[in-house]
Amino acid sequence: MYKAPVEEIAFTLRHVAGLGAGLAEGRFGDLSDDLVDAILSEAGRFASDEIAPLAEIGDRQGATLKDAAVTTPPGWPALYRAWAEGGWNSLTAAPKFGGQGLPHMLHVATMEMWNSGSMAFAIGPTLTIGAVEALSAHGSAHLKDVYLPKMVSGEWMGSMNLTEPHAGSDLGVMKTRAERRDDGTYRIFGQKIFITYGEHDFTDNIVHLVLARLPDAPPGTRGISLFLVPKFLVEADGLPGARNDVFCHSLEHKLGIHGSPTCTMIYGDGRFGKEPGAVGWLIGEENKGLACMFTMMNNARLAVGMQGVAIAEAATQKALAYARQRTQGRAPGWQGSGMSPIVEHPDVARMLLTMKALTQGARAITYACAHAVDMSHATEGEEARHWAERASLLTPVAKSFATDVGVDVASLGVQVHGGMGFIEETGAARLYRDARIAPIYEGTNGIQAIDLVTRKLPLSGGDQIAGLIAELRGIAGSVGASNDTAFGETAARLAATLDDLQAATDWLERALAEGRQADALAGATPYQRLFGLALTGAYLARGALAEAGDGRGRERIALCRFAAENIIAETAALKDRVVSGAASLLAAQTLLE
Amino acid sequence: MYKAPVEEIAFTLRHVAGLGAGLAEGRFGDLSDDLVDAILSEAGRFASDEIAPLAEIGDRQGATLKDAAVTTPPGWPALYRAWAEGGWNSLTAAPKFGGQGLPHMLHVATMEMWNSGSMAFAIGPTLTIGAVEALSAHGSAHLKDVYLPKMVSGEWMGSMNLTEPHAGSDLGVMKTRAERRDDGTYRIFGQKIFITYGEHDFTDNIVHLVLARLPDAPPGTRGISLFLVPKFLVEADGLPGARNDVFCHSLEHKLGIHGSPTCTMIYGDGRFGKEPGAVGWLIGEENKGLACMFTMMNNARLAVGMQGVAIAEAATQKALAYARQRTQGRAPGWQGSGMSPIVEHPDVARMLLTMKALTQGARAITYACAHAVDMSHATEGEEARHWAERASLLTPVAKSFATDVGVDVASLGVQVHGGMGFIEETGAARLYRDARIAPIYEGTNGIQAIDLVTRKLPLSGGDQIAGLIAELRGIAGSVGASNDTAFGETAARLAATLDDLQAATDWLERALAEGRQADALAGATPYQRLFGLALTGAYLARGALAEAGDGRGRERIALCRFAAENIIAETAALKDRVVSGAASLLAAQTLLE
Repeated sequence: MYKAPVEEIAFTLRHVAGLGAGLAEGRFGDLSDDLVDAILSEAGRFASDEIAPLAEIGDRQGATLKDAAVTTPPGWPALYRAWAEGGWNSLTAAPKFGGQGLPHMLHVATMEMWNSGSMAFAIGPTLTIGAVEALSAHGSAHLKDVYLPKMVSGEWMGSMNLTEPHAGSDLGVMKTRAERRDDGTYRIFGQKIFITYGEHDFTDNIVHLVLARLPDAPPGTRGISLFLVPKFLVEADGLPGARNDVFCHSLEHKLGIHGSPTCTMIYGDGRFGKEPGAVGWLIGEENKGLACMFTMMNNARLAVGMQGVAIAEAATQKALAYARQRTQGRAPGWQGSGMSPIVEHPDVARMLLTMKALTQGARAITYACAHAVDMSHATEGEEARHWAERASLLTPVAKSFATDVGVDVASLGVQVHGGMGFIEETGAARLYRDARIAPIYEGTNGIQAIDLVTRKLPLSGGDQIAGLIAELRGIAGSVGASNDTAFGETAARLAATLDDLQAATDWLERALAEGRQADALAGATPYQRLFGLALTGAYLARGALAEAGDGRGRERIALCRFAAENIIAETAALKDRVVSGAASLLAAQTLLE
Repeated sequence: MYKAPVEEIAFTLRHVAGLGAGLAEGRFGDLSDDLVDAILSEAGRFASDEIAPLAEIGDRQGATLKDAAVTTPPGWPALYRAWAEGGWNSLTAAPKFGGQGLPHMLHVATMEMWNSGSMAFAIGPTLTIGAVEALSAHGSAHLKDVYLPKMVSGEWMGSMNLTEPHAGSDLGVMKTRAERRDDGTYRIFGQKIFITYGEHDFTDNIVHLVLARLPDAPPGTRGISLFLVPKFLVEADGLPGARNDVFCHSLEHKLGIHGSPTCTMIYGDGRFGKEPGAVGWLIGEENKGLACMFTMMNNARLAVGMQGVAIAEAATQKALAYARQRTQGRAPGWQGSGMSPIVEHPDVARMLLTMKALTQGARAITYACAHAVDMSHATEGEEARHWAERASLLTPVAKSFATDVGVDVASLGVQVHGGMGFIEETGAARLYRDARIAPIYEGTNGIQAIDLVTRKLPLSGGDQIAGLIAELRGIAGSVGASNDTAFGETAARLAATLDDLQAATDWLERALAEGRQADALAGATPYQRLFGLALTGAYLARGALAEAGDGRGRERIALCRFAAENIIAETAALKDRVVSGAASLLAAQTLLE
């Protein structure tokens, strides 16, 4: 059973991602080290003791639909209420609306734990928090007053309604329409698919944020508006009143996250209300809906990255526990009597160390991204701009690398279990199934790669990425300067990987400058992976340097060295794909037509 | 829906794996080119039109157990009977027992198609054919006369009973026991788990091959005997009579291959028969059971490798069809109106080309392995020994590389589908689930790697692997000599990969010679992958060279070049893991304790 790695999470926040320095510099108000520890420790308890035990039943029974009402798995509504009452929904929200105003780093750290406990459960709150962010940034004072307090407390949940059958990554072609009414409200008509927690029995009301198109809107993404559409219209007393004309038409039958209802939502077909049309209120300006969504999209992407970390952590714990107790054969050098635990076999150790290193690397990247978000709020002017860019640069890598790691590590976890891994009751298979959605939703990892290469590399004319690489080189230099032989070849390996990152970056920047768009896009995914591996190597080294000296520190160095000498060498081939793979790819594309 | 790639399969058999030369040299009796085509074409029709349409219902309904009786999915018993009546069970068996005596290559080619149609369906017949092989090689004349004709025709199916809860990879510790009886029969007592098609409703009788231990057997693997234990005892008239004391106690709830019943079998608890004990007949000699199993184990491993190829092929077809029709965004250079098909996006093209290249590489490796099996039977003396060694060397690579490819390609297939990939009805998710067992059963891929490094590299004092590498170098040389610029950097890339293979091989041989067992085992899995990638690069080139000149040939060259310039460069990092990864791995192993 999952046990939240509170100590490791706290260490990564403080010594790898930058929370320690931030606290020391007083960047986060009166947030103290003690409070951080108390929050993490209580979150760890809740995730391990309350959420994780309900994960399996959630998977087995799933969410069910009857007469437009969704029933979540047994125990889940009570679990949600206990979670909200614990204040976990309000960590980062503004105090004005009942939030605790804590740094985003604590949000992602707790998110990791909820998702390790049960990804299907945690994805609901994730979306509510995204809706809170969008509403906070763009909603009218009235909308905020009516909705935010209940959404921050968790009394009501939110949902995000973007996708339509023909409009997934390309929102510009969506068809859901909105009509103006004289009273300043709108009526929404259309169908949305893949709406996570679009309907459920956790809360008395659900606040849908819905993208739709006005009759006179310009074509494409510049003609999309964002609306707030509550399941129940809110009365003057602030309580839910009449049913709005929106309902869940069907649930998807999915590979994983079975406890999470994935809804097809129908707006305005007249099933509820006197006249057809779901009543909606505009958020932000007409035709500026996509900009409103972008506010929360970066954070949502980072939140999905956390799901990758979370699954990887849970899979690693499970596999390690199994490998320690399962005996089979005799490993080389095994001195015990009888069979050795399979963890003693070098091949099994390779899998487990790879799982550990990738998990810690992905965690460090996502936390560093959250730190940049926090610093962009805690600073001003040029500094704030720098940190906002840093967050912007790291977001696609955090989302894609961590979710790929989630899938890969979950797959290794199944493999470590041998035949037992294929049996559902073991639980490794559930992680393998749940993990698979994360590289897809909130923008596929391919979309992230396009974003990284075409929009993030050019930040500050390339200075942002150059600055980050310089920072990482500093870490490699410190490893060399430590003169600690336990690091083995780490310094040299890391330097070589950073050379690969530099060369690939240079090449992509040149391709873009020369208008060779297809060449750049052909290398985007290998580049993204290379980026993630380079950060993994560097961040593991940063952690090892921070704790060098004592027993845990020796373990960090050993894992860092393993990653340097066994994992990150892959960057040479990835760089190669970026700088010389495009021609053969584009030449072979005709094969596919 | 899957459509068997008959032309591609025939091409690979003939021009890459060696069937063409074998036929030309008259190695396979009166087997003609026409007959090969007729067999492949009819198998393709059966797989596409009969099996594939029943895959989804098999997955959804699965196999169920009631009162020790298993019900397979609707339509499956009839499907099995049609398949057996088509003669597909008897392709390679001896004509004396009703078999067709055809080369093993046709067996694996047809196996690929059955498994692409439905892996859950095809795994049953695979095990019957393994049982036929073991019985043919080691059974007494009487046992063969009684059982083989019905097992060859498919009227009865077989099952393989090896695993026990505490004895998976390590069969030496099994506990199922056998007692001698005065009439020359034995009584079997014990429990076996993970018994595929241990009980079902396809046939009137099931012939279990069971490993068990005699009371006076030496400890470990030298004390295991193999027994034939029919579900129904066979009467003098050759028909099933009394029920034997063996039954299916429970079915596993699995991640995938739901239609395939995975049984816990109980032997000799007295549920059936007058006195407890399942009646069994010895196959081969007492305490030599493991040797009997090894007869069929290599072929079973190759058959599982085929499952990897099969899933990869099915996943590639499905993803390609989707990517051609799904439109989203505008790819660079897209000239059409509106959104472009996603296949036009370079990132999607990269996934699809990778899927294609890995599938064809895995197919070529498995077919080449089957060709070596055939040649070992079609030749004599030194030549036969050479081919037997070649088959032996290629088997672990065929099993492990192809099954890893199955998982990776199925995962890419989900990704290409975006959100639809996570919806079960699309079918991509089923392939992702089904694929995951293949790297585990019939010896995990980690076990294959140990086998490859410790038992296969030393064949003929290293001459066998050296000879293979020389052969592959010949292919790289031919690419260079072709002077066809469409090959791009293929010759140089392939040569570099073969240098990696050579260097890693040398290093492992030295480590083994010096008794550094742990060092060698630490690198076994990366070595196995490196081996598979080198063969993929070389065999794609061999195919491209064979068809150079015409339209299809240009496509082969383009895919070969893509693999050379975008996939096989990974071998440098893999070689690196072999030759310098062990120290950091073994140093970090303490972390896991």
